Amino acid sequence: MPSNRSHTIHKEHHHFGWNNANPPKLKVAPGDRIEFDTIDASGAQLGPESTLADLARLDFGKINPVTGPVHVDGAAPGDALKITLHEFAPSGWGWTANIPGFGLLADQFKEAALHIWKYDRSSLAPAAYGPGGRVPLKPFAGTIGVAPAEPGLHSIVPPRRVGGNMDIRDMAAGTVLYLPVEVPGALFSIGDTHATQGDGEVCGTAIESPMAVSLTIDLVKGANLRSPRYTTPGPVARHFDAKGYEVTTGIGPDLMAGAREAVMGMIDLLTAKHGLKPVEAYMLCSVCGDLRVSEVVDMPNWVVSFYFPRIVFE
Amino acid sequence: MPSNRSHTIHKEHHHFGWNNANPPKLKVAPGDRIEFDTIDASGAQLGPESTLADLARLDFGKINPVTGPVHVDGAAPGDALKITLHEFAPSGWGWTANIPGFGLLADQFKEAALHIWKYDRSSLAPAAYGPGGRVPLKPFAGTIGVAPAEPGLHSIVPPRRVGGNMDIRDMAAGTVLYLPVEVPGALFSIGDTHATQGDGEVCGTAIESPMAVSLTIDLVKGANLRSPRYTTPGPVARHFDAKGYEVTTGIGPDLMAGAREAVMGMIDLLTAKHGLKPVEAYMLCSVCGDLRVSEVVDMPNWVVSFYFPRIVFE
Repeated sequence: MPSNRSHTIHKEHHHFGWNNANPPKLKVAPGDRIEFDTIDASGAQLGPESTLADLARLDFGKINPVTGPVHVDGAAPGDALKITLHEFAPSGWGWTANIPGFGLLADQFKEAALHIWKYDRSSLAPAAYGPGGRVPLKPFAGTIGVAPAEPGLHSIVPPRRVGGNMDIRDMAAGTVLYLPVEVPGALFSIGDTHATQGDGEVCGTAIESPMAVSLTIDLVKGANLRSPRYTTPGPVARHFDAKGYEVTTGIGPDLMAGAREAVMGMIDLLTAKHGLKPVEAYMLCSVCGDLRVSEVVDMPNWVVSFYFPRIVFE
Repeated sequence: MPSNRSHTIHKEHHHFGWNNANPPKLKVAPGDRIEFDTIDASGAQLGPESTLADLARLDFGKINPVTGPVHVDGAAPGDALKITLHEFAPSGWGWTANIPGFGLLADQFKEAALHIWKYDRSSLAPAAYGPGGRVPLKPFAGTIGVAPAEPGLHSIVPPRRVGGNMDIRDMAAGTVLYLPVEVPGALFSIGDTHATQGDGEVCGTAIESPMAVSLTIDLVKGANLRSPRYTTPGPVARHFDAKGYEVTTGIGPDLMAGAREAVMGMIDLLTAKHGLKPVEAYMLCSVCGDLRVSEVVDMPNWVVSFYFPRIVFE
């Protein structure tokens, strides 16, 4: 039940990592609407004019700040927060990087790379990339979660039962997310907003882009969720799908090896067809290619497929 | 370059397993069009009137026959076959089963179950399932491949570098598939046709349905493919996506465990919401739910998501 109450929480109210001892920066009641201002995943260490030298100086202690935490009246362990995502107001710029040591093919891409994106924040027209590429945008929040029950400071990087850095590209306008509550008040935070991303986020970064997010928080008492779940109000890939896909596969007994093989195949295809450097193709795969499990039952070999939307180059 | 030649190969010309010593049943030139008649994955041991008792008597030596092999003039190791899928003419019936010992959750679903589907072969209107469910159809070939270089008989069940039982739900009309050739003449076969399936084929069977398939075989000399790849002519999930999705997640350091957790979550949701028995929900997940890798880079936890199309119950 939406209330008539609305709140704003500014980006100055952020934290690094999850800790249920963090004092709430805002208290709301179920049904309240909140406008969050977020900082990009670099913690504002990168900007629209940044270069590779700035990437090299990145202080990893300051990555992925999340705005919050927000205390929700009456939320208790065993409940679920019901988050309805209303609107994303992107900033018009973003960055994608290959960060050494991070990403699905970290062993193959050891050199840092950085791409700065400019896009039209009002039209959200596809963003230019390399020779002739245009990447459709669909803004969403990469990190959205609540504080874990376990005391102490927990890294922001891995997602958990309570959500967090899930990097699910469908955490976009209209989606309703249910998160398991583990501490009184839930302590909700959000950040790591992306202008767009494919399933998998294979190079480890998306179009990292600060933006404002408007959402409603509600409460489902006694939901006892095992892990996060969500509902989308409609299609999830219409921005990508109109011209079909180029698809590469990885076939074998290990899903991770299959994922790597499929992505390597796509990098080969994109470099051959469109004159991208391998690392440029890898970053492009991260922002718009989708990793799917085509079959996981034909023992002992599974098929992982990587879907690259042809609309990017057509 | 399409030729004007067309051929028909009847279902009597089938084989069990892959073996490059199988004599060709048909010889074609690149560019030829071929109509294949196929047998369902039970090898015609199940029919529209079958019961659980018939499933229990299944002879697994006769499962998954493929129609072929077809020898392609001039095909040599290192080339790729280029298969353009034109049309599927489904039979109007199909079966989905939980077969003990087979499937993503075989440890949890130990009892055999069988569902016989009837659908309109001309309109391909969504097929009824359980209380109020309607499953959109998109016919395709589950098994499509060429003979492996390694001599001897190889099980039909696992897919390989040369394709085979890939169970990729987008091997549908319009798709162009490239398969690595490993033996002279390629020795192409096809079968295991499905009226529809989701990504993952989680219970191990789809809507198993005999049908005729029309396709053109062409040759790409010296393609040197590492594994199969394909191009789709347009969107791949429009039959599922109009009403959005219910999505469950599995979060943790192992993709297989994540896939299992996500599917278990969806079975719980479908049984609670729609009054299905767990095994009925499991089979429904197999025919229309999609398994995706949402992120595979936020060390050490990955997110696997299972997308169930809301249109089935709306």
